[in-house]
Amino acid sequence: MSQRTIVVLGGALAGPTAAARAREIDEHARILLIERGERVSYAVCGLAYHLSGEVGALDELDRERGAFFQSVYQIEVWTGTEATALDPAAKTLTVRRTGQSGVSSVAWDALVVALGAASRAPDVPGLEGTNVRMLRTLDDLAAVAGALRAGGRRVTVLGGGPLGIEAADGLVRGGAEVTLVEKEASLLPRFGRQASAAARRALERAGARVHTGVTVAGVETDGGRVTALALSAGGTLKTDFVVVAVGLAPRTELLARAGARVAADGTLLVDERARTSLDGVWACGVCVSTPQALTGAPAWWPQGAIADKTAQVAGANAAGGEARLAPALGSMLLRAGDTTVGRTGLSAAEADAALGRADVGVTTVHASTHDGYFPGARTLLVQAVWQRASGRLLGVEVAGVAGVDKRIDAAAGAVAGGLTVEHLAGLDFGYAPPYSSARDPLNVVATVAAAERAGLAWPITPKLLNERGAGVQLVDVRAAGERGGTIAGALAIPLEELRARGGELDRTRPVVAFDATGRRAYLAARILRQAGFGDVQHLAGGLASWELLGLPRAGDVS
Amino acid sequence: MSQRTIVVLGGALAGPTAAARAREIDEHARILLIERGERVSYAVCGLAYHLSGEVGALDELDRERGAFFQSVYQIEVWTGTEATALDPAAKTLTVRRTGQSGVSSVAWDALVVALGAASRAPDVPGLEGTNVRMLRTLDDLAAVAGALRAGGRRVTVLGGGPLGIEAADGLVRGGAEVTLVEKEASLLPRFGRQASAAARRALERAGARVHTGVTVAGVETDGGRVTALALSAGGTLKTDFVVVAVGLAPRTELLARAGARVAADGTLLVDERARTSLDGVWACGVCVSTPQALTGAPAWWPQGAIADKTAQVAGANAAGGEARLAPALGSMLLRAGDTTVGRTGLSAAEADAALGRADVGVTTVHASTHDGYFPGARTLLVQAVWQRASGRLLGVEVAGVAGVDKRIDAAAGAVAGGLTVEHLAGLDFGYAPPYSSARDPLNVVATVAAAERAGLAWPITPKLLNERGAGVQLVDVRAAGERGGTIAGALAIPLEELRARGGELDRTRPVVAFDATGRRAYLAARILRQAGFGDVQHLAGGLASWELLGLPRAGDVS
Repeated sequence: MSQRTIVVLGGALAGPTAAARAREIDEHARILLIERGERVSYAVCGLAYHLSGEVGALDELDRERGAFFQSVYQIEVWTGTEATALDPAAKTLTVRRTGQSGVSSVAWDALVVALGAASRAPDVPGLEGTNVRMLRTLDDLAAVAGALRAGGRRVTVLGGGPLGIEAADGLVRGGAEVTLVEKEASLLPRFGRQASAAARRALERAGARVHTGVTVAGVETDGGRVTALALSAGGTLKTDFVVVAVGLAPRTELLARAGARVAADGTLLVDERARTSLDGVWACGVCVSTPQALTGAPAWWPQGAIADKTAQVAGANAAGGEARLAPALGSMLLRAGDTTVGRTGLSAAEADAALGRADVGVTTVHASTHDGYFPGARTLLVQAVWQRASGRLLGVEVAGVAGVDKRIDAAAGAVAGGLTVEHLAGLDFGYAPPYSSARDPLNVVATVAAAERAGLAWPITPKLLNERGAGVQLVDVRAAGERGGTIAGALAIPLEELRARGGELDRTRPVVAFDATGRRAYLAARILRQAGFGDVQHLAGGLASWELLGLPRAGDVS
Repeated sequence: MSQRTIVVLGGALAGPTAAARAREIDEHARILLIERGERVSYAVCGLAYHLSGEVGALDELDRERGAFFQSVYQIEVWTGTEATALDPAAKTLTVRRTGQSGVSSVAWDALVVALGAASRAPDVPGLEGTNVRMLRTLDDLAAVAGALRAGGRRVTVLGGGPLGIEAADGLVRGGAEVTLVEKEASLLPRFGRQASAAARRALERAGARVHTGVTVAGVETDGGRVTALALSAGGTLKTDFVVVAVGLAPRTELLARAGARVAADGTLLVDERARTSLDGVWACGVCVSTPQALTGAPAWWPQGAIADKTAQVAGANAAGGEARLAPALGSMLLRAGDTTVGRTGLSAAEADAALGRADVGVTTVHASTHDGYFPGARTLLVQAVWQRASGRLLGVEVAGVAGVDKRIDAAAGAVAGGLTVEHLAGLDFGYAPPYSSARDPLNVVATVAAAERAGLAWPITPKLLNERGAGVQLVDVRAAGERGGTIAGALAIPLEELRARGGELDRTRPVVAFDATGRRAYLAARILRQAGFGDVQHLAGGLASWELLGLPRAGDVS
């Protein structure tokens, strides 16, 4: 067999990974890595952490140079090289190299496309200037960091998705006065309302201003710089710098023009071997969709962990290997101020869309990371999404100030393994007091879900309770000593007195019990049901969830 | 139906949990919780963390009083009450109550046995005195803490299992001069050699002295106190206090006398509903064995997370519920100085015993918790145990100074879900730079395991390499700039130069490549195999594993 040529298109994360993996499989191939910019391998996921000051030198994000790929992997690297056309039949690529006139043709036996995604431009006429940047490359990063150093402290971040949150978090930590503007009603559309609210609250606590449901209606400029933004909700936002983080667009024009199958969102569709629809062409990284673990439908998760996995598979297979994609869970972690929000598997909305709402259970709890006696115990919001028919765990969201990443990863294993909520309720996670509680928050949420499946628990969501309004008798069953706001109109009957004072409630009307986190209210509902009350529910997630959603509350009770 | 009587035997953790769960299921039953001592519910898992000073007041471990169980759960609590006989046919229990003469009989419809385990006495003649204590109850804890306060700084811990490690860790943190004595050759017999070595090194770094393979051959006493211990290895250990932590014995005599089925280790055997072999008698907590998730064989895991789970099941079912035990993984976490060691699923030795050694793969890596550019990245030892035939992940061990608990819990989900190493290699865990790397250490270990399964990797363990000795050509493929001890006789050829310098190696002799953590050596083996070398292996876990095991090394190379 003559020497094969494997061409990998695209630097940053996925391309270099695919090229290296190809070399592991085939020591003899010619491997050529082609990158438009000047940097081969850089940490596109790390940009916000230079803004925060945690990654001191921008150079630390510039991971490996061409010399490394040459010496360790014998990979030829062409930077400053743009692919302008692909001929899948002839198996050639037309490229233009910086400093060379005209174009040249590169023949390949296998092509791996890892062109990534570009930042989407904002749909705001006139929003351009020397102080308006996306945040996608090290050059973007240098521009933003330079502006901050030059004294521009007021930074507007456009976009409240993952990229916008990461940028805002990094900028706030770096000392900027940050205003985040998101046109949708809430941040993080791929998260549930409570996790989204937790992220917003945390950003605000950290000092950022957050506007949701707001667009930029007008732009004031001065000398090629944007100086202020008029907001659709009224008011003008003076700004020294604008970071545009409204989303990503996969770079797939080259492949689309060559006839590759592309999804509606513009991503390349690949099979479980990371093959595109073109013979001899693989694709990976943030320009592809991959089958979601639970639905099998292609889903686009433009993030590093999945890009890394698809790159390994594409690289191996392009070199003659036998790798397969694992079904993607869409796990995410985001830091917002003191809070981390994370998800894995399907969100409630995604599960509703895939299975139909009637078959989807959603369970919310607030539970402690540690035994109360050990210092540092913190309360986590945990939401489990599960299938009513089978009990299968479909997804988990977590928000809190410690231990979120751990629960997301533990849930990822459980979702990938197809565990039921009953199994998760009884699973023995690692336990010792410095690390957790004997009953982990994931056990807790699954226990409540299993109780609901078994007909032993009757949770009501804060939203639904708020909508039901005055028809419901509200009972606050917190202990006599517990303080904090309550829900207007609630009757305070501590759980300890409920058996004796049940007569104060009207058996003919619906009752909803609530407490701080959900546990006591569940017990109260069990007591009242067994005392003959026909319509009793308990507030899921307790007042902690109610208040997170900003629902109406009365004054403090003691 | 007349009111049922549910009797729960045993306080601390499992009994109170079972009683509370019984109440959730049946609001109308009479529920009676019987405890020998004076405290109803206390944190038996937390004792060592008062010694360390992390749990300030001993009272914080005394969780709930009888009044709480009465007011919240309407559970009648009898402390100071010992059950002396059980008549399963008559469904009665004979009890003796402190302060009352004679015994009385208690009739039950359902009995839940949660008597826990006692500390085993050491098999050392004469080892008794006012300064010799086990560490199982709050009274034990008060005695040890009191002795430390009174100025006895030299503490000997007998036993290097989980209880001994926890005690030694707590005592060292609390300022004691600790000497740990273990009769077996290594600490933590339920862990592999490397995790065990990591725990030992960490305890020693924290200031403890550790003797393994050593027993106490003689005891010197003075006025009813032990003053020194003569060690079998020679030498005398002066001591102010002796903490005995040589193991646990399940308290199952009462049930055994009544005819309940008991395992060889003395634990009660229960079915998946936590039923004993006696009609109407359930059991839970650390006096029972439960089916191991992967083998189905009963296994005894005397620890809090499993005790909590069995208690919920026993309590629910005793009250007429329908709960089932989830298969136990035997997850464990232990803190030893700056290091945490953890395991979940089967250890290599357990897998060998269950499946036969030929069907068991063991993969060891050292991998980073975070992307290198983010501050705080630390290296973890990760060992995966998997089935060769199916690829199924059987168990995981992790050791390191950060993020161990997270990987154990993530692995627990994966083991419980029956994931293969191929699936785990491609699983997308939550990723953002503050939390992890795009390729998590669990992905890394699974990727190497999958490569071995696919015939693409040929790891050799440090132990086997050491045994093979001089017949092997050793090649140190670390980069030219990497420093640290190497293995005697190794030829240094940086990976970058290996393709050019392969001629320096003898193709007719076996080659083993090694590096710091295992990654480069794997690449080196791929290069050499494809260059025609027939017998090439790479050192699993790298020099980090070699050195952890204390294997012979040469001087530093530069």
